[in-house]
Amino acid sequence: MTPAQARARFRGGLVTPTAGWCDGATQANLITVPRAQAWDFLLFAQRNPKPCPVLDVLDAGAVTGPLMPDGDVRTDLPLYRVYVDGEQVAETPDVSEWWRADLVSFLIGCSFTFERALGSAGVPVRHVEQGVNVPMYRTSWRCREAGAVAGPLVVSMRWVPADLVATAVAVTARYPAVHGAPVHTGDPRELGIADLDSPDYGDPVRPEPGDVPVFWACGVTPQAAVVESRPPLAIAHAPGHMLITDARDDDHRI
Amino acid sequence: MTPAQARARFRGGLVTPTAGWCDGATQANLITVPRAQAWDFLLFAQRNPKPCPVLDVLDAGAVTGPLMPDGDVRTDLPLYRVYVDGEQVAETPDVSEWWRADLVSFLIGCSFTFERALGSAGVPVRHVEQGVNVPMYRTSWRCREAGAVAGPLVVSMRWVPADLVATAVAVTARYPAVHGAPVHTGDPRELGIADLDSPDYGDPVRPEPGDVPVFWACGVTPQAAVVESRPPLAIAHAPGHMLITDARDDDHRI
Repeated sequence: MTPAQARARFRGGLVTPTAGWCDGATQANLITVPRAQAWDFLLFAQRNPKPCPVLDVLDAGAVTGPLMPDGDVRTDLPLYRVYVDGEQVAETPDVSEWWRADLVSFLIGCSFTFERALGSAGVPVRHVEQGVNVPMYRTSWRCREAGAVAGPLVVSMRWVPADLVATAVAVTARYPAVHGAPVHTGDPRELGIADLDSPDYGDPVRPEPGDVPVFWACGVTPQAAVVESRPPLAIAHAPGHMLITDARDDDHRI
Repeated sequence: MTPAQARARFRGGLVTPTAGWCDGATQANLITVPRAQAWDFLLFAQRNPKPCPVLDVLDAGAVTGPLMPDGDVRTDLPLYRVYVDGEQVAETPDVSEWWRADLVSFLIGCSFTFERALGSAGVPVRHVEQGVNVPMYRTSWRCREAGAVAGPLVVSMRWVPADLVATAVAVTARYPAVHGAPVHTGDPRELGIADLDSPDYGDPVRPEPGDVPVFWACGVTPQAAVVESRPPLAIAHAPGHMLITDARDDDHRI
């Protein structure tokens, strides 16, 4: 399936997490805020490049861009979350009714992009094996703030066989535009995570014997900043339900 | 000499290009514009990461930041250019009299950062050998525009022995935060450059027999965009006269 075909299916109403979809096509996080808040959000992304690697920023009011020819950010993701004053007010597959001419959309790199490379290197990707969404957690680590925007680092977690942790690090370090190397390996308490079975977003994933938890910075981080910073409106993907772009994973490999 | 000592000497009035200064310390391009124009400039940088890799953005009105503790962007570069409505109106070692509380400063990666690595790999750096500034050229290649900001790609050029071009590419590709791999090697006419002996910025450099011209995206690109886009005020480093930061070159290596 091509990215355009996948976007058309989501536009048609299909709701599903996108891990494992469209092998080789870059997936992106979405965060959309009014122009008045966009400077602080772009600066926040610039100052926190591990969780917020910006792939593209659309012009104010624009619903498409070069990474998604003929696409529409209002309809082409499988599921969205809408926040008003930092409170989630809707989870919906179509945000057309919320759209305004002053909205600026940020497309932020997603770690799903390097999962094919992990698989090719022999590193199993458990949530894809188990057919569930990747688990994500708000941590106790703070991002560097920018103006009114501040919040915690959010991470995604993958169970990795201990003898393949070094491989997982080496593979993902070559993808700095989509979160790059892990931020932490091992004890989740170092990140302030109390219980790996209760992720803040996504689904819990079962480890296999000998697996170690490995944590990558996550593009849901801007949503945690929305909750804390309370812009008047923000639109984002539902965690794990990404924009599938026409960019190629290989374009992001160093 | 430490970066802080170098900044103090420039603050004291020394005017000199900074190539070869403070081995291992990251040098940065400066572009400062009013807050009203800053969104377009940050977006321009985001959309043109090869010429405009952003190392940091200071808050509006701020004259220092984490990359230059106790530094002052108004005085700590050896030489500045001041533009009003896109016209250069001053070249001065101190821009304090031009400062305004709404000015936003961008620190942009500089290719001087990887010159030590080139030298360590056995690639001669001719402009340092010859004690002159690196030559820079406006090209016929267009940057991707952002709002009111548009302009040509500016490149720096280094003569490289033909049998070391591959080494120069491999070494610099590992520094994407400071322009990364070359954008072009060989015929300057492909870039719309008529005469390598007449650079638009910096000094001409003599090749040695067997040298090939190699071109890297350059952090003077925002200044060319200032000339074309005519913001009411812009302050920048004089080409080759960089901010020497406390960041380490090795921090930018992948």
